[in-house]
Formats: sequence, structure tokens, C-alpha cells
Amino acid sequence: FLANIDPDIQTGLLKMMKAPKLVGLDSMNLWITHKKPSLLKLLRRVDLFVANDGEARSLSGENNLIKAARALRRLGPPLVVIKKGEHGVLFHSDKWRFCFPAYPVDQVIDPTGAGDTFAGGLMGYLSQARKINLATLKKALIYATTVASVNVEGFGMAKTALLTMADVKKRMNALIEFIEPG
Amino acid sequence: FLANIDPDIQTGLLKMMKAPKLVGLDSMNLWITHKKPSLLKLLRRVDLFVANDGEARSLSGENNLIKAARALRRLGPPLVVIKKGEHGVLFHSDKWRFCFPAYPVDQVIDPTGAGDTFAGGLMGYLSQARKINLATLKKALIYATTVASVNVEGFGMAKTALLTMADVKKRMNALIEFIEPG
Repeated sequence: FLANIDPDIQTGLLKMMKAPKLVGLDSMNLWITHKKPSLLKLLRRVDLFVANDGEARSLSGENNLIKAARALRRLGPPLVVIKKGEHGVLFHSDKWRFCFPAYPVDQVIDPTGAGDTFAGGLMGYLSQARKINLATLKKALIYATTVASVNVEGFGMAKTALLTMADVKKRMNALIEFIEPG
Repeated sequence: FLANIDPDIQTGLLKMMKAPKLVGLDSMNLWITHKKPSLLKLLRRVDLFVANDGEARSLSGENNLIKAARALRRLGPPLVVIKKGEHGVLFHSDKWRFCFPAYPVDQVIDPTGAGDTFAGGLMGYLSQARKINLATLKKALIYATTVASVNVEGFGMAKTALLTMADVKKRMNALIEFIEPG
């Protein structure tokens, strides 16, 4: 996972990797604005791109997030994840697309680190699943949404650091109940 | 269904009704600002309140929509529906709460009437279901979300007026597939 930093450094890191199975990428508006050519080049070499709504709009030039997701896919990454904060997450690929609301947090203490927690949860889940299909992608994004929701309820890593798998599973089930259409 | 108009007129209409089984209410910022006492009084007499995110925040004084939904419930209506536009819908009651993303529309032509189409779909579905439980509420909100999504794809009622039940069912199924967590 190429966490958010200068895309030239991300590219350098990627070059050191020996036959990675799945490469994830995060970026931010700073690089979209000031290092766009490097970022665009790198996007063609990654499997999964994670962006928040603002970044997705800015990089794609599309205000509509459904269009933005398609435009990001055209930039290279086969798997596109758009994080919408309190409104959840949108997933787009050629074969599959879906959207989940966020876990209903009523006391946001500190959003810092939510994106990294989300990305960590997503990559961690896919890493242990060891395959990419619709079921694992959905589960991975529910897992990511769940851990990110805990993160915003405390300052820094205060709540996240204390999480047990039992806590995560409990909240994942509550989230699934909250978003289950029927 | 008391569609959006001066709450004093809505109250007058409600008084003419003989033992309604379910009373729905819509309002807007104009009345929240200028006729708040009348609106608050009316809210205590209705079963279902439909508001968009801005109205929910303004009337409840809560920025967080989870908190806003709870605050609106405390104002009277047992069933609270908060419409979040492209981000879908949040439902809150004492027993149940859930959240669905919107149908992924990539060409919004005209949002005018989306709220009324949503409310019409919701009330129409509940009216034919003739009971209120978690399953009918979920289905009603998916139905409402579906018809509203068609409405924004055309100018005024252009697309909505031509809808058949087969079209609606097809899009409802696509929406369910899009939001199904597992």
C-alpha cells in the first residue's frame, strides 16, 4: 500500500517491490495540484486507488461522483474506492460497483487518521482474504468503514489502538444491519 | 400526506381529515424560519416527517444527521426520514434505523420535484402495503429513492410521467444490488 506521500517517493517504493500481488494507492490534493504528471503516471501502475470525494472530483474534473469514479478508472486503477466521509463509500470497477453508507457515528471527536485507518482496514482485509471477488471487496469495504468509524470517535488512535476483533465484528454486524436493504 | 406549504394551511387540512391512519408531513426552510411555532405544533400531530438534510439540521439545530434525526423524533413524529440527495436516505424511529445510498444517477438534468416524487413514492408504497413494519418501511424507502432517481434524470415530470411498474421494479432491483452489503 502506497500511503499518501509525494508520488515520486511512492513510485520509488513501488520499484523496490518484487512482484506485488495487489498495489493500493492513496494521494491528496497537494500532489493532485503540484505533482499531477507523476501521480498520473503512477496511477497506471496500481491496482486499487483510494480517494476521498474532494480528491476524486479534483483529479477527475467531474463533480458527479459516479462519473468521477469512471473517470478515475480510465486513469488506470482497475479498482476505485471513493470515500464520502459521513456518507460512506462508493466502489467502482469494470465488473462491479456498489455503495455503502457509513456507520452512524453521533460523536465525531477527531477525524484525523480516518482515511489511513480506512485504507489500512481495506488492505488488511484483502491481504488476509488473498483473493479479489465481489464478496471479499464488499466485506473489505465494510471492514474498512467499520474501523474508520471507531477512529473518528476518539482523539488520534485513542479508540482504535484498543480495538479487539470482537469489537470490530460487533460493529460490522451493526453496520450491516443498518444498511441491509431488505 | 401534508405536502410542503404553510403549516397553518397544513393544520387546517389535517383537521378536515376523518381518522387518518398515517399522517405524513413535508416542510421547508421558509416555514422553519418564519412559522416555527406552527410547524412545531403540527409536528406533534403527525406520524411521519420527511426533511432534507438542510431542513433537518436547521430545524433540529444539530449538524450531525444521526443526532438531528433523534432530535426530530423528540419533536413528535415517530417516523423520521432524512433525505440526503445524492447520498441517499436516513430513517430513524425508536425501534428501527437504517440508511440507504441513492441510485447512482450520472446525468442529473433537473432536481426539481425530486423531493415530492420521493414523498409520493413513500406514501404510495406505505398506502398499498397497509402496514408499518421494518420490511415495509425499508421497501417503501427503496421505492421512494428509486422513483426520485428517475425524476432527476429528466426535466420536470418528463421521465417520471412515462414510468411503468416494470421500469420501477427493474431499477429497484438494480438499486438493491448496488447497496446490498453481502
